[in-house]
Amino acid sequence: MLIHPDRLFPAESSARKIAENLYEEIRALPIVSPHGHTQARWFALNQPFPDPAQLFVQPDHYVFRMLYSQGISLDDLEIGRHVEINSRNVWRIFARHYYLFRGTPTRMWLDYAFQELFGMQDRLSEENADFYFDSITEKLQTPEFLPRALYDRFHLEVLATTDSPLDSLADHKKIRESGWKARIIPTFRPDAVVDPEFPGFLANLKNLADQTGKDTSTWPGYLKALRCARTRFRDHGCTATDHGHPSARTANLSPAEASQLFNSVAAGTSDAQQNELFRAQMLTEMAGMSLEDGLVMQIHAGSLRNHNRRLFERYGRDIGADIPTPTNYADALRPLLDRFGNERSLTIILFTLDESTYSRELAPLAGHYPCLRLGPPWWFHDSPEGMMRYREHVTGTAGFYNTVGFNDDTRAFLSIPARHDMARRMDCSFLAKLVAEHRLDENEALEIARDLTYNLVKKAYRL
Amino acid sequence: MLIHPDRLFPAESSARKIAENLYEEIRALPIVSPHGHTQARWFALNQPFPDPAQLFVQPDHYVFRMLYSQGISLDDLEIGRHVEINSRNVWRIFARHYYLFRGTPTRMWLDYAFQELFGMQDRLSEENADFYFDSITEKLQTPEFLPRALYDRFHLEVLATTDSPLDSLADHKKIRESGWKARIIPTFRPDAVVDPEFPGFLANLKNLADQTGKDTSTWPGYLKALRCARTRFRDHGCTATDHGHPSARTANLSPAEASQLFNSVAAGTSDAQQNELFRAQMLTEMAGMSLEDGLVMQIHAGSLRNHNRRLFERYGRDIGADIPTPTNYADALRPLLDRFGNERSLTIILFTLDESTYSRELAPLAGHYPCLRLGPPWWFHDSPEGMMRYREHVTGTAGFYNTVGFNDDTRAFLSIPARHDMARRMDCSFLAKLVAEHRLDENEALEIARDLTYNLVKKAYRL
Amino acid sequence: MLIHPDRLFPAESSARKIAENLYEEIRALPIVSPHGHTQARWFALNQPFPDPAQLFVQPDHYVFRMLYSQGISLDDLEIGRHVEINSRNVWRIFARHYYLFRGTPTRMWLDYAFQELFGMQDRLSEENADFYFDSITEKLQTPEFLPRALYDRFHLEVLATTDSPLDSLADHKKIRESGWKARIIPTFRPDAVVDPEFPGFLANLKNLADQTGKDTSTWPGYLKALRCARTRFRDHGCTATDHGHPSARTANLSPAEASQLFNSVAAGTSDAQQNELFRAQMLTEMAGMSLEDGLVMQIHAGSLRNHNRRLFERYGRDIGADIPTPTNYADALRPLLDRFGNERSLTIILFTLDESTYSRELAPLAGHYPCLRLGPPWWFHDSPEGMMRYREHVTGTAGFYNTVGFNDDTRAFLSIPARHDMARRMDCSFLAKLVAEHRLDENEALEIARDLTYNLVKKAYRL
Repeated sequence: MLIHPDRLFPAESSARKIAENLYEEIRALPIVSPHGHTQARWFALNQPFPDPAQLFVQPDHYVFRMLYSQGISLDDLEIGRHVEINSRNVWRIFARHYYLFRGTPTRMWLDYAFQELFGMQDRLSEENADFYFDSITEKLQTPEFLPRALYDRFHLEVLATTDSPLDSLADHKKIRESGWKARIIPTFRPDAVVDPEFPGFLANLKNLADQTGKDTSTWPGYLKALRCARTRFRDHGCTATDHGHPSARTANLSPAEASQLFNSVAAGTSDAQQNELFRAQMLTEMAGMSLEDGLVMQIHAGSLRNHNRRLFERYGRDIGADIPTPTNYADALRPLLDRFGNERSLTIILFTLDESTYSRELAPLAGHYPCLRLGPPWWFHDSPEGMMRYREHVTGTAGFYNTVGFNDDTRAFLSIPARHDMARRMDCSFLAKLVAEHRLDENEALEIARDLTYNLVKKAYRL
Repeated sequence: MLIHPDRLFPAESSARKIAENLYEEIRALPIVSPHGHTQARWFALNQPFPDPAQLFVQPDHYVFRMLYSQGISLDDLEIGRHVEINSRNVWRIFARHYYLFRGTPTRMWLDYAFQELFGMQDRLSEENADFYFDSITEKLQTPEFLPRALYDRFHLEVLATTDSPLDSLADHKKIRESGWKARIIPTFRPDAVVDPEFPGFLANLKNLADQTGKDTSTWPGYLKALRCARTRFRDHGCTATDHGHPSARTANLSPAEASQLFNSVAAGTSDAQQNELFRAQMLTEMAGMSLEDGLVMQIHAGSLRNHNRRLFERYGRDIGADIPTPTNYADALRPLLDRFGNERSLTIILFTLDESTYSRELAPLAGHYPCLRLGPPWWFHDSPEGMMRYREHVTGTAGFYNTVGFNDDTRAFLSIPARHDMARRMDCSFLAKLVAEHRLDENEALEIARDLTYNLVKKAYRL
Repeated sequence: MLIHPDRLFPAESSARKIAENLYEEIRALPIVSPHGHTQARWFALNQPFPDPAQLFVQPDHYVFRMLYSQGISLDDLEIGRHVEINSRNVWRIFARHYYLFRGTPTRMWLDYAFQELFGMQDRLSEENADFYFDSITEKLQTPEFLPRALYDRFHLEVLATTDSPLDSLADHKKIRESGWKARIIPTFRPDAVVDPEFPGFLANLKNLADQTGKDTSTWPGYLKALRCARTRFRDHGCTATDHGHPSARTANLSPAEASQLFNSVAAGTSDAQQNELFRAQMLTEMAGMSLEDGLVMQIHAGSLRNHNRRLFERYGRDIGADIPTPTNYADALRPLLDRFGNERSLTIILFTLDESTYSRELAPLAGHYPCLRLGPPWWFHDSPEGMMRYREHVTGTAGFYNTVGFNDDTRAFLSIPARHDMARRMDCSFLAKLVAEHRLDENEALEIARDLTYNLVKKAYRL
């Protein structure tokens, strides 16, 4: 067996028994996935996924980062190559280095998929690489492994994608019109048109104008265009926005100041400091629009993108060299909170890559401001240890009810059940410890387990 | 039962047994409470506490912060209203939302008081809200629930309040003169006259002059006035000062520079930077006075006060919107330590809201400088998890004997036994783990448990 | 018994059993000590170590820091005195205060040496201080306790010292020429000639010129001299360099800029900012030289040296008053990584005193860049809790194979077996938890235990 039925539960037998009981009750609840990076296109077209290398290795930065760190080049993995990929060879390299993933969550997600989806029984290794490759390749061609079939098999209730305001949402429309009963919804992620340092920003502004029929060369016109785009997203089922900023900085400029700043930005003459201020102001503007239209706001702050200059120059964005940085929330969010912090009909979900902020800033903020909620452990912190630290650091001050359940946040569609299962098990383990130490009754823990798995995410994301 | 006799002990049976044994030996030791925010007036007047809403909900920012974060307004809780409070209604709101506190230390403190003081057996809920309200209200009117009776029942040996240098200490005097055998002592907290940004600072300086007969319009006169005020506190039994500063910054200006800075401050013309420098210099001055008069110095640094502008404008200070910030100690304390760091007759107790400083700065500092000691986990960190993290992060470098036992630091008098009990249990759990992993002998652990509970606090605070 | 055979293993019985099994398999593996501060001179001369006070108390800053923090002066410990040391008296003071070390790793290291090397059975105390003193003194005079005999007894395979480029390496040469079969190798630590704020820096440059025959008054000549010195170290078996910098800052100046900066530095006219920039540039230069000559590069960043001004003025460097500071790696290392980050034949091992960087910056960096590896928990963090936090924070992102095994990093030669034993036990405990929670197979854990103990260090340090 690659994965054990009691995995991730506490070793101590009384706590383990409690964890098992809790898990049994929530194991089969539907998956609500309110934030991630799967593609609507897969479900619109419903074509087979390609071979295992193109499915598991090349698109997953968790996987190829680790391989790269140990001296395997992206050329070896044929990343960035668009023709004649020798997938079997890539897979063999991966299999030979699978031991590198010991102790990581990635290993657990992969083993889950290998066993539960593809029926594998032995750990992937150099020896069985070809057997894996052939078995998976074969299964992927069967109807049971088409994207829509997997969506149903995974017991997904909602799946949110993440999309540019410039996206036509044609794939979402196609899914809807197909009559297939699934809820795949877009998320409004406006980085491309609110971050002056985003590649092609000025052209993006123009496209936004074309798409919305608003004049994005003026501050009022630009805001109108954004409102239009948000409305279009809402019409396609969107309930949330998402903002990926290098810092959590917000600003609260007067309309005149904001307008002047926008003019520099739109003219392409703004410097780094002005760009940061503009992003900061736009978070506050977006909060204001959320108050109007009810879209839940997500802030993913603190990632230093494209840290590896050479890889960025050769392969572009998202090639796995983003590095977290120290992030301040108490000062950074103050301008936004000064304006909207006490609004009870606004929901802002905060994410961090800086775990030192959990107990120092985030739990105190979310445990006070009615508009704030804490997103689950993000990215480098979605390991079992990271999930445990999250609960241990935030619960004392923010409780359970200022958190919003789990996000898988993944591009790897096949890892979704494994990721949610890990989160469910870790929540049960945390709760089991509280019960075993007589801090919660078991029936309370059960109610909380259900809330963390299902109710809180639906409420927070207004699904 | 609301609280279990084995609560907070490790689930694993061998460690639990050790923890139980340790706890049994220290459970009944007297409570020494060297820092907190109870009011001497309660004990001077010895009047019944009001109803449960006014006792448990309205004054406790741990409680109303959480309710506020979930959309209950301070108006709903009738906070800030001085007449015609519908306490039963406030209590019902609280009861209906009591589930929000699951997993928090507040829930454990409250359940302890409900069961141990008021004999409750079922968890507070919407259903039993009125029963709770009526039972507690009735009991509060009985002689056993008068402040002095509770002080005795709690087995308090010392209770320190926290007081402005402008306070007449009349209540402390009255207690003393009443002949009641209790040790309720003031703590000298000079923020009102050393922080230029404290509301009414200039008027406070004038009051200090009136009270001490010294001319507070000059630097030497101001220092004399502070010395006078400290002497008056010492005459009332005070053994410690307390300093609540936004940062831990200290300064070591020449007398001429300090005098010039004071002139700006006293003229009300100082800017934010000068105000910060003045507070920094005053920490060093206060350390110097402590060296003279023997008062132990407490530094509570790193709280960004009154973060929620709107609530501050409407309700004023201490309404629960203080947020921790990253705090530097290694650089910030250096000027003070350059001058007084090697003084063996000086005691400075450091507190932090930034847990990342435990192992990085505070344990190394306290594990070296003879004047430094580490205060217990503060405020947002006084949860079971926070207490465990504290021991796990500081013990390796600073040991047990550079720490000073527990502070309840509370305004909620009825929570004092619960808070100390939690600290005792967590210390026993930590020690039990060390014994179970063969890092300490059980007899050593027992000695340490007694020191952490009783001896270290008396020694550090010179009680 | 002072030390228990099952010490440091999890209390829970199933995990303990696994930890015991793992430990049994790696317990007796040879010790590879690739970084530390023992002296080649001991082994070159092979003279008896002095009495216990001079062996265990005076040279060990872990020991005298703690004593100093509790009011024992360095005069009491006769530190800095070179004649007529009353060692018995120093030892008695230490014994009387031995309880201060409860819960610290120092206590475990000392107890290990007392029991395993000197056969002690009762914990050191005021009562048995003289018995300890006499027994240890007597044993130290026997052949079994000579440095070379201990080296063999400790089952050391490699022992690296840390040496200035100005060191003649005569002791290393003498050891080699003695025919004794031991591998004691120097490490190239160039602080004295690359840090403009190092005491005697300008004189050091001159000495470097004399020693290498290169003109260190020009930038190209200075670089040549450093290359020469590195070659000399390599000829003596050196495989690594070590860099102790106040921050992790690196720079990537053009040759012209670097040359101009060097001119200021070499003229003694550089200011603090230029000194920092020079150190930053030198890290990048050293990385470049490592790429040429294959020496592995270690960066120990983030210690604020000589924090206690008065002790520094009286006793000089290394008297135990170094304090960690917040350290940034993501920005600081970028210039170096821009230039060399993707080099697969370069190895840079990063150390930190700021644990908040483990999961936030270091694991993501080491889990991506092929040249980066993570050194073990350093200095204030080499406690059992610190070691556990290290694995818990880095494994999810960087795995096991981007770490490099253990460093004892000690001046206390007799503590080496105890320190390595602690690291082995903690790694087994961490692995046992993963096995008990069904995240690893036991045979995988065994392979990892061997890698963490023996294989990774040999590979990373190219031994």
